[in-house]
Amino acid sequence: MNSCDIINKTKRKTPLSYEEIQWFINEYTNGNIPDYQVSAWLMAVCLNSLTDEETFALTDVMKKSGDILDLSAVSGITVDKHSTGGVGDKTSLIIGPIAAACGVYVPKMSGRGLGHTGGTIDKLESISGYRTDIPFEEFISIVNRTGFSIVSQSGKLCPADKKLYALRNATGTVDSIPLICASIMSKKLAMNADCILLDVKYGSGAFMKTIEDARKLADIMTRIGTMAGKKCSAIATDMNIPLGKNIGNALEVAEAVEILQGRTKGRLYDLCIELSAEMLRLAGKGDTEKCRQLAENAVSDGKALEIFAETIELQGGDSRITEDISRLPQPLYSHKVCASKSGKIIGMDSEEVGMTSLMLGAGRAVKSADIDMSAGIVLERECGDTVQNGEHILTLYSSSVSDFSEAEARILKAITIE
Amino acid sequence: MNSCDIINKTKRKTPLSYEEIQWFINEYTNGNIPDYQVSAWLMAVCLNSLTDEETFALTDVMKKSGDILDLSAVSGITVDKHSTGGVGDKTSLIIGPIAAACGVYVPKMSGRGLGHTGGTIDKLESISGYRTDIPFEEFISIVNRTGFSIVSQSGKLCPADKKLYALRNATGTVDSIPLICASIMSKKLAMNADCILLDVKYGSGAFMKTIEDARKLADIMTRIGTMAGKKCSAIATDMNIPLGKNIGNALEVAEAVEILQGRTKGRLYDLCIELSAEMLRLAGKGDTEKCRQLAENAVSDGKALEIFAETIELQGGDSRITEDISRLPQPLYSHKVCASKSGKIIGMDSEEVGMTSLMLGAGRAVKSADIDMSAGIVLERECGDTVQNGEHILTLYSSSVSDFSEAEARILKAITIE
Repeated sequence: MNSCDIINKTKRKTPLSYEEIQWFINEYTNGNIPDYQVSAWLMAVCLNSLTDEETFALTDVMKKSGDILDLSAVSGITVDKHSTGGVGDKTSLIIGPIAAACGVYVPKMSGRGLGHTGGTIDKLESISGYRTDIPFEEFISIVNRTGFSIVSQSGKLCPADKKLYALRNATGTVDSIPLICASIMSKKLAMNADCILLDVKYGSGAFMKTIEDARKLADIMTRIGTMAGKKCSAIATDMNIPLGKNIGNALEVAEAVEILQGRTKGRLYDLCIELSAEMLRLAGKGDTEKCRQLAENAVSDGKALEIFAETIELQGGDSRITEDISRLPQPLYSHKVCASKSGKIIGMDSEEVGMTSLMLGAGRAVKSADIDMSAGIVLERECGDTVQNGEHILTLYSSSVSDFSEAEARILKAITIE
Repeated sequence: MNSCDIINKTKRKTPLSYEEIQWFINEYTNGNIPDYQVSAWLMAVCLNSLTDEETFALTDVMKKSGDILDLSAVSGITVDKHSTGGVGDKTSLIIGPIAAACGVYVPKMSGRGLGHTGGTIDKLESISGYRTDIPFEEFISIVNRTGFSIVSQSGKLCPADKKLYALRNATGTVDSIPLICASIMSKKLAMNADCILLDVKYGSGAFMKTIEDARKLADIMTRIGTMAGKKCSAIATDMNIPLGKNIGNALEVAEAVEILQGRTKGRLYDLCIELSAEMLRLAGKGDTEKCRQLAENAVSDGKALEIFAETIELQGGDSRITEDISRLPQPLYSHKVCASKSGKIIGMDSEEVGMTSLMLGAGRAVKSADIDMSAGIVLERECGDTVQNGEHILTLYSSSVSDFSEAEARILKAITIE
């Protein structure tokens, strides 16, 4: 086989065989094919797409490029959930404990963030003492004890994805549905849970800008997961406005606690119940209605919060934050932002709200940057609310920035009042 | 500016500005942009094409990446001709002397070949003593003396094209009309003749497989040449069967001499008259009919052959080959090939005939290979001829291969008799 033939086939929309994709990706991962040939192929994929069979082959080969987790020591059905990410998305912290409270096992590996706020792992590290980098045996033992654990993703998962993603990022070849699918699903399949739920976000704060693209990605990921022998489903959810009221690392942990305490309802709570119910349904816990009821009970009877506290404790963290969120990192500075006119809030641009939180120190512009765990935004009003000129609508927090003028200007532009 | 923005624009079919193309190509040529970004962009160009304005910008920037010849010392109108190449194409050796005999100046730079046979420079080097690597001043002086000179292309022309072509070759991004156009035209415009004639081949032995693609390439090259202020025209010509009866280096020089001697007519002669007439028309020597007459006279009165001899002499070569072609390198071995059935020859696959000549030693499979100047094929019968089973239809020649069985099998398969 040779690289040019493979590039030419994709360029001419001639499907590649499993063996061709296997050879190409493995040789690339092993350093035997140069970046410049692979980037040409990636661009051909972006513009000509791949068939389902090719996408499955790519996913499978990438999955097999590294470790595949052995979850056989977990005492029951395992369920994983993946969100394509968005501003204020802290659902993993909430639905893991809820699903575990209903009798399924959620052994979850997450990543750090490069963007508006940290990733799930960064958020959890805002809890004093919480260890995200623990040995695999301990991870499994915590899952067996509480039903739920989140640790940071092993460096040995999907090295092919790591190398390909870095190249895609440098060559304008990120936004291709089969490539995104293979990148996400290779990792999910290497993590090897029995059931996989995919939450595909669309809109301003998300990777997919339209609901149509989100559905396409959701569909192909479900097909690939099913071809790989997993119970798999996907839903497309709106990210045009931020998810929940808190954006930032410690702030999002605090909001997750409030949801698990049953003290906060609304859009975020509804979405978490929907996602948890779908995880339970995939795991065979009954139909959607029954699973929804199970999920709601797990919040109202405090079982989910208890599991969250227990898991934090077992991972070395200060579990008292589940009773007292003021034990989370507190910001040195804060700044109230008021409406500049009267009217109804009809839009809050997620991307811009996210960029504001990045300005406050909540995210990383580059991989090596430190995160200000206390920084972020609390939205006091939400879309649909009517506000008066001068009324307090949100608060900015930071320990690294004391002059809020730029951040205030940016976030005011992101909020449309009519 | 940044590379990813540029890649993304072409990926989304958003035209790039002149400044963007200039920055991207210059930074690449200077080693500041990695191959893997440029190959992704090249693939986007292959699949999404470029506008005329972008193609002009690319051509212009590539042209300006190196030297631009100063032909102001030539005493009259200069005409260049470019063929996209094909099996048995020795027209440059014929039409240069014809056009010069009619009063225009043909200062031509050519390349070596990587393929079935050598390039024009390799063919000329089969003439004992002929120097293709001569100082620019001497080149101009020969052009002023005889009207015609062919030397090898200066290494300082279009370094951007050299780098881009090597990358295209390794990344399946060769066959794009705007990229082919920019590669050819940047060199032609750097060679800087007043008039440029482009001979775009199509068919089995050629780069463009269909007449439609050849016409597209001819049209865009003419438009780009005209935008650059040159008199420019292009014709699409058939390469489905080899051009002329001889394929190989010394063999093609011999056939060129026979054409210039007026001893051989037919398809090759007709094409040479057509091309020469078009060069003369571009140079303002009259309408097509008048120019055709001038070209024919230049052959029949021996003036063109005389100019070819004079130029060979001035470039250090043995000009007696123009009277006695047996002074060209002679092969050690030859082998007559006979028809394997009776009938009419209805096809001779150029590509396969070319591959046979490569097997005999007439070309280079890799850049560094040596050429067997004496090797090649003489077609004794042409398409349309009726032949008898066992009748001698062609002869294979070589000094490096003495066992002709493989070559015979290959070329017999290339010839269709019905």
